[in-house]
Amino acid sequence: MAFQLSHPPIEVVIVGAGPIGAGAAAAVARRPGLTLVAVVDTDPQKVGTELAGMTVRRELPPPSDEARVAVLTTSSSLARLEPLVLECLARGMAVVSTCEELAWPWSNPAVARRIDDAARNAGRGVLGTGVNPGFVMDALPLSLTAPCLRVDAVRVERVQDASTRRRPFQDKIGVGQDPAAVGEALAARRIGHVGLAESAAMVSARLGVATEAFVEERRVVVAEHVVERAGRRVEVGQALGVEQIGRATRGDHVVVELLFRATFGAERSWDRVLIEGEPRLDVRIEGGIPGDVATCAIVANAVPVVARAPGGLHTMADLPLVVASG
Amino acid sequence: MAFQLSHPPIEVVIVGAGPIGAGAAAAVARRPGLTLVAVVDTDPQKVGTELAGMTVRRELPPPSDEARVAVLTTSSSLARLEPLVLECLARGMAVVSTCEELAWPWSNPAVARRIDDAARNAGRGVLGTGVNPGFVMDALPLSLTAPCLRVDAVRVERVQDASTRRRPFQDKIGVGQDPAAVGEALAARRIGHVGLAESAAMVSARLGVATEAFVEERRVVVAEHVVERAGRRVEVGQALGVEQIGRATRGDHVVVELLFRATFGAERSWDRVLIEGEPRLDVRIEGGIPGDVATCAIVANAVPVVARAPGGLHTMADLPLVVASG
Repeated sequence: MAFQLSHPPIEVVIVGAGPIGAGAAAAVARRPGLTLVAVVDTDPQKVGTELAGMTVRRELPPPSDEARVAVLTTSSSLARLEPLVLECLARGMAVVSTCEELAWPWSNPAVARRIDDAARNAGRGVLGTGVNPGFVMDALPLSLTAPCLRVDAVRVERVQDASTRRRPFQDKIGVGQDPAAVGEALAARRIGHVGLAESAAMVSARLGVATEAFVEERRVVVAEHVVERAGRRVEVGQALGVEQIGRATRGDHVVVELLFRATFGAERSWDRVLIEGEPRLDVRIEGGIPGDVATCAIVANAVPVVARAPGGLHTMADLPLVVASG
Repeated sequence: MAFQLSHPPIEVVIVGAGPIGAGAAAAVARRPGLTLVAVVDTDPQKVGTELAGMTVRRELPPPSDEARVAVLTTSSSLARLEPLVLECLARGMAVVSTCEELAWPWSNPAVARRIDDAARNAGRGVLGTGVNPGFVMDALPLSLTAPCLRVDAVRVERVQDASTRRRPFQDKIGVGQDPAAVGEALAARRIGHVGLAESAAMVSARLGVATEAFVEERRVVVAEHVVERAGRRVEVGQALGVEQIGRATRGDHVVVELLFRATFGAERSWDRVLIEGEPRLDVRIEGGIPGDVATCAIVANAVPVVARAPGGLHTMADLPLVVASG
């Protein structure tokens, strides 16, 4: 049979006990075929606490004879994540990470090549994924091009009401803060969504289009009236959130356009994928895919696929379908 | 780099010069990286005619040293397709086919095992695909479960206005015919959509749910007033088309529900995928994915993926993403 419903269980080590690590640990613990064996964090405040039935430990566990995958939720920066990825590979573990820059690592070719070499030598797969980058703005639009004779452009919109998200997410988009300070932090990339460039690069590369430039506009959305939601109040003149538009172009032609807007109290949330081509496809997900739950889920769902993947640095664009199970 | 934008071109042989074969030939001819090398049909009326720049020939071409994929558009029946698949494999060709029963061949385990064995021995991949089965009701909903912690049920609706489709499709759903005769042909499975069972089985298997039963309701939709579209007129009391609902169940629980309705002059066409779970996702494609164009496209788009796949019988649920290119 092409599908064996029973595989030996895969051991999973979660590294990073923040909100996403905690959610991923819970998702792993409930997913059939996965066994959570350790949660690791270097923060002394977290070491010794309980998470998904495990006591958080400071160090990676000793190597195991079982297939083992490390789920890394510690950093958005590929450069900062690299030593940990290499250490996990050296211990025989495959790697799945929510590191945004790992979702399309080939924009950082030197680091990507080192990781790819180490992963090939170890015979273990490495994957960066998450809801975005990793799905809404890259793997999903790519999969939607399957029935197209021709693709001229891909446009994705992700518009979110931040009042339904956790506080660290609201902080990351400047909710309730001074717009000038938010604008400065946004321009310096200290806040805002990370991943538009990675998603655009993944889509272009997998479609076989050599884009020449990627430009991202980032602006602060300011409250024009008081917004009160979920026990929080944003005053007139304070920041409601951010809007970012990334465009990958070839000459004058926009090949990939990605709109991310997250504001406190937005009336609707939605995701939309528009494939301009033959045929044209307009795909809408009313309400949108909720970010945190989806990132934790996709990481857990990717574990079996990465555990069985050949050694090397993969992306969502070249692995078999990641799906939910059970 | 993980993605090489230039591979050696893949030679493609189209077998079956009907409407889908002709469309697939055109799609292959325009797709970068593919070279159409032959169109084959046993119909004496077609042999010697021109298609996509090729003269239709009666026999498969002699083996080639280049990577070569045969695209088979000759039959919906796996049993009838088997000898041709085995012959193509014996000639060193990988196989992509629009044969609906090949999309999920494991419901016919004896045939599937023979093809799988032959494909493994030949070191060539075999895939059944198309817009449906192959995408709208299986690969697409599966890919949409990636961000889900839990999936309780998958529901897909594909509702189509048949007046925009070619005449053989209208005939296949009984447009303008006597409802009693259409009902009989539908019950005997001589007409109607083929593939609900395959799609339901693929979704259940890939989600790891052992469903216990699959039941399909099939009914004729009858014109209650005159419908006139695209130069064709359907009278009151004649058949407008068909509605088919397939349900895969486990105990009392409907795990997969697939609705296919194609009627002449339907006011709207749409595809919709509903993932019931955590989170719940409601994904709508207004206008729907046009069937014929999409099937020809997905076949051409699958060729490079199947050419590089390991030997064996594959499905859309276990191959890397099939995407459009160029």
